[in-house]
Amino acid sequence: MAEVALLGFKPQLVVPGMKAEAAVRFYKAAFGAEEIGRVAHPKRKAEQECPLILSAELKIGSSLILVSDCFDAAGEESAAAAGGGGIAFRLEAEDVDAAVKKAVAAGAEVMSEVSEEEGSLLGKVKDPFGVVWAIAAVGKKSPEPEA
Amino acid sequence: MAEVALLGFKPQLVVPGMKAEAAVRFYKAAFGAEEIGRVAHPKRKAEQECPLILSAELKIGSSLILVSDCFDAAGEESAAAAGGGGIAFRLEAEDVDAAVKKAVAAGAEVMSEVSEEEGSLLGKVKDPFGVVWAIAAVGKKSPEPEA
Repeated sequence: MAEVALLGFKPQLVVPGMKAEAAVRFYKAAFGAEEIGRVAHPKRKAEQECPLILSAELKIGSSLILVSDCFDAAGEESAAAAGGGGIAFRLEAEDVDAAVKKAVAAGAEVMSEVSEEEGSLLGKVKDPFGVVWAIAAVGKKSPEPEA
Repeated sequence: MAEVALLGFKPQLVVPGMKAEAAVRFYKAAFGAEEIGRVAHPKRKAEQECPLILSAELKIGSSLILVSDCFDAAGEESAAAAGGGGIAFRLEAEDVDAAVKKAVAAGAEVMSEVSEEEGSLLGKVKDPFGVVWAIAAVGKKSPEPEA
């Protein structure tokens, strides 16, 4: 199979029970995490008391981790519900379709077909070891929060 | 609490059923992973057919991941059994004791006390969100394989 350019991945912690905000606070207190970015869910209004965190990016030492509230969009299975204990890997690819096809050819199972989501092309596969990989296009940013 | 220097973490996938070798092969096929290091379990002989992988380090794009067979040493709970869906984070700290104390003060629970393990100081905590953090000393390498 042809080479597929993958740029790297970040672990993404999907927190159930609307506790992503609490998780962010915990990682700051426990590991001195620095919050370097946050994207609220675009359907939430800024004045709501408890905004859903689509993705907060934290830096712990030199490493990056994404923390997200668990939510179901359009009936899509959430990463937490689908296994992996709430931890998924967000893998950046130059060609999302090719990357998903290569993973499937190697034995991964499609969890959600490649589609435009969160402002970027995204496909999800589960590997034979139960790990969820969200394969996303490189350089496409999620929408800015409506702050 | 005083600052605790953390250098960063690597995700560690703990694979049950002696399938770490299969997982390494899968990640090479699926994501073009490059194996940049492997440490076999020091109690295994190299001539054994199916060596336990203490830790294989893979590079996917610019990111690193550790893949390990799941095994119980000295009655220690395995990461897979303890939650986190087989994914833990190996966090490098300059002062393991201080890092564990700070995490516990913030709400993490000790899974195994700090002790000399795999050739380096290591303590394990589980955070309030179910994620296992193996906090290890910086720069101490695991023992070389008996190849």
